[in-house]
Amino acid sequence: MDHAITAEELAEKIKEISIAEFFEKNRHLLGYENPTKSLLTVVKEAVDNSLDAALEARILPTVKVWVKEAGQNRYKVKVEDNGPGLKPSKVPVAFGKFLVGSKFAYLKQLIGTQGIGIKGVVLYAQLTTGKPTKIITKTKKEVHEFELMIDVIKNEPIIVSHKKEKNESGKTGLTIETEVEGRYVEGQQSILNYLKLISIANPYAEIIFNSPRGKHVFKRATKKLPPLPREIKPHPYGVEIGKLKRMIMLTKHKDMVSFLTKEFSSVGKGSAIKICKLARIDPKTNPKNLTHKEIEKLHQAMNKVKLKAPPTNCLSPIDEESLLNGIKKEFPAQFYSVAVRKPTVYRGYPFQVEVALAYGEPLKNEQAMLLRFANHTPLLYNAGECAITKAATKINWRNYGLSQSSNSLPNAPLVILVDVISVWIPYTSEGKQAIASYPEIEKEITLALQEAGRKLGRFVSKMKRLHQLKVRKNIFQAYSTVFAEYLAKITKKSEDYIKKKVEEILNKGEVEESKEVKKEKQEVVEV
Amino acid sequence: MDHAITAEELAEKIKEISIAEFFEKNRHLLGYENPTKSLLTVVKEAVDNSLDAALEARILPTVKVWVKEAGQNRYKVKVEDNGPGLKPSKVPVAFGKFLVGSKFAYLKQLIGTQGIGIKGVVLYAQLTTGKPTKIITKTKKEVHEFELMIDVIKNEPIIVSHKKEKNESGKTGLTIETEVEGRYVEGQQSILNYLKLISIANPYAEIIFNSPRGKHVFKRATKKLPPLPREIKPHPYGVEIGKLKRMIMLTKHKDMVSFLTKEFSSVGKGSAIKICKLARIDPKTNPKNLTHKEIEKLHQAMNKVKLKAPPTNCLSPIDEESLLNGIKKEFPAQFYSVAVRKPTVYRGYPFQVEVALAYGEPLKNEQAMLLRFANHTPLLYNAGECAITKAATKINWRNYGLSQSSNSLPNAPLVILVDVISVWIPYTSEGKQAIASYPEIEKEITLALQEAGRKLGRFVSKMKRLHQLKVRKNIFQAYSTVFAEYLAKITKKSEDYIKKKVEEILNKGEVEESKEVKKEKQEVVEV
Repeated sequence: MDHAITAEELAEKIKEISIAEFFEKNRHLLGYENPTKSLLTVVKEAVDNSLDAALEARILPTVKVWVKEAGQNRYKVKVEDNGPGLKPSKVPVAFGKFLVGSKFAYLKQLIGTQGIGIKGVVLYAQLTTGKPTKIITKTKKEVHEFELMIDVIKNEPIIVSHKKEKNESGKTGLTIETEVEGRYVEGQQSILNYLKLISIANPYAEIIFNSPRGKHVFKRATKKLPPLPREIKPHPYGVEIGKLKRMIMLTKHKDMVSFLTKEFSSVGKGSAIKICKLARIDPKTNPKNLTHKEIEKLHQAMNKVKLKAPPTNCLSPIDEESLLNGIKKEFPAQFYSVAVRKPTVYRGYPFQVEVALAYGEPLKNEQAMLLRFANHTPLLYNAGECAITKAATKINWRNYGLSQSSNSLPNAPLVILVDVISVWIPYTSEGKQAIASYPEIEKEITLALQEAGRKLGRFVSKMKRLHQLKVRKNIFQAYSTVFAEYLAKITKKSEDYIKKKVEEILNKGEVEESKEVKKEKQEVVEV
Repeated sequence: MDHAITAEELAEKIKEISIAEFFEKNRHLLGYENPTKSLLTVVKEAVDNSLDAALEARILPTVKVWVKEAGQNRYKVKVEDNGPGLKPSKVPVAFGKFLVGSKFAYLKQLIGTQGIGIKGVVLYAQLTTGKPTKIITKTKKEVHEFELMIDVIKNEPIIVSHKKEKNESGKTGLTIETEVEGRYVEGQQSILNYLKLISIANPYAEIIFNSPRGKHVFKRATKKLPPLPREIKPHPYGVEIGKLKRMIMLTKHKDMVSFLTKEFSSVGKGSAIKICKLARIDPKTNPKNLTHKEIEKLHQAMNKVKLKAPPTNCLSPIDEESLLNGIKKEFPAQFYSVAVRKPTVYRGYPFQVEVALAYGEPLKNEQAMLLRFANHTPLLYNAGECAITKAATKINWRNYGLSQSSNSLPNAPLVILVDVISVWIPYTSEGKQAIASYPEIEKEITLALQEAGRKLGRFVSKMKRLHQLKVRKNIFQAYSTVFAEYLAKITKKSEDYIKKKVEEILNKGEVEESKEVKKEKQEVVEV
């Protein structure tokens, strides 16, 4: 018989869940829903962390990855870097407690920011193999080795073992070693492809991959580290009123002008006074004395007053040359174009879009290939939900001379590379494989693609014109003997003489044309 | 100048983040990435909760929804139900603290289980309008009205106001009233369509929608409440070793047989002994004394011994008649087929797939329309990432006589309804709009679709055969006069006599055929 539950009984059952237990039950949120994707996620989380740490410490990164079979559907994964290592006392929480991180609180362009990723590796390992994960951190003086698990009910690290010794070599770095359920594949959505793509977008990194099927080395293409992205305050555009209220609650500044100029980026004294004026608030008011109505007006004014774009040094796009070199190295083609948008904001977070296109022979793909990146990290899954895919399929590529079915990528030998960089990438899930469709972000991707697309369009139409010219010339050539014969009769010159002259003219045309063709065909780059 | 960060400095920055702050920064994870989707999410979270509460309390639900414009891109949303209400003292945490819930801890088929959804509404409201959300709970004796916000830094509720009075009417229920940023649309991904689809899959519910453009009533189609799904223990198949270890750590049972029979579903004494034998463990062993090696063997044995499927009363599929009535009501067609799979398990969680197909006139859609449901709730977003979409597009529908481009839905006047029900739906994000691609789940969806597809295929091929017959008959009829003439000459009977006979035969054929056609054409149902 059904037993009806009363309000009292329903309430009794209410209990608190730890975030670790939540993720254990929902491990697919972290990218662990099937063995193939799970193995990739393990490698990705570790490599992303290594690159971030090296970049912050201004060290040219060398990352070594081992993936080794350890039984049926079981793999040992080891990732070793030459970064600064992590202070030993912080290792347990950094790897064994969810929602603890060094990067969440401040706005800075990095790959990992959520305080979740690497803990997911430890959780997934203990869940699927029951084994702890080994972390070795080498700081200048000491080497510490931890074996860690996570107390899922409490969201606290369990230190299974901890050894330390002197660091004889003095070399720093961090190593993570774990055993997980997985499946190793090669192809589009694979560890190998992920590492290949990451080396395109991070050419200053050296990556060595010891796969179950052999060794791959992705060499360092430049020794130039990208500039370190700066930490930044939120930009006033798009900051929600709820966040503004909290900023007011927490601020130490005692008047509106210092509050606006110190707590936000891109607001000078003049803009601050303009904002106050528009909101009819005295610039000397203590922000804490504002009423809800006044805060509402302030919020509206902040979005209306014309402000500078966010400073560019908070973002570190791939420079155009490196981007071109990267795509050229992996995708030889006839034509390249690049478009880099200026930084703009969504919800107060600065972001920027850069796009590279590679087109034509020797590329042979029938449908365009879309390479998605977020903060220079390749996104290999969840393409359908990604703002990049949405923008790229909504664009009318027929405008640029390509054929396209509706809501699809164009049918052309084309590679489309899109990199969205931001101080806060809005991933569609904690597994960080797609970018959420905030309208501002989708719009910027569209504009960048259109900019690069227009350059491509000019090339495509030139190539079509040259092709038509050539067809016409071929027809003329075919008739040239007959033509020479008639001309000889009319001009009373010898047929041979006429033929020679005609050939000369045709060849001259050919030489000029081939110059033009060469210019167009051989790796044309429009930036 | 770049300032290199040392291990020590990096570690200092590590800090703990509250889950509320995490979701505030990542509001897109909860379904709030653009105004249109956000408004739908607000309504969906409230309606889902109302249906769950009514079902648990065995009350036929009546849910009233108001959406009203309140300024540019601002809407007031109110959802009122006739459920049991919620115990007033529990209201603040139930609505104002993330990862607290009544449903997370136990395995039971319900719409809401995460301890997240409805808190997202309160968070999104305060973030985008700065306003608290009003909750009115009516239990039999009292009416309590709360205005709530969330302290994001602490993940704790803030009670802005609290009033109580006697419940004069004695009617119970819960009302939520909030003001949010949003955009109201009608169409596929809209509140209106969401409510229409929910009424198909939950025909016992009455839903009244006062939209900004007018009133819509979705009437109750049956007074029969579905049986209350039972709470259940995990099934041994697919339970990860990490989870098994924790179950062993937490169990109160002191020997293997009671541990296995009491902590799992579908394990009788016989199966428990078989499992122990296969794992070479004495059935009398205290589980807490098992070594890691023994637990590994136990884990393998649990997955190898043949066990009963999970009990069916933990899942409450829509009964076939209701499913057919629902789809017939909204999608009149020539042919229907239904397939309901038996419950099976992924990761120890029982789940079940049911499928309904509607095909042919008056349906006119060129490409099949896919309706996705999880625990009888429609999924309107993130189709590309959903296990249902993946299964439906991977199937070779050409086997069933339909045309199809590769990796697409078939091109046919077809509606495909798939409902996945489970004690734990693995949503791809906290926004609960798509089901993660666990291999076991995708496989069951595929099998269900193939089962229904084969029935459809028989109908399609019969229809094709009948069509060919008709074409042949028409040709024969066209030649019948000539035929009669020749026949008359040969048989020496009068031409008129022969003509009459031929016509008789043809008509007889037609009568029989039209009987068959009628049988096939008029709403054929294969179950």
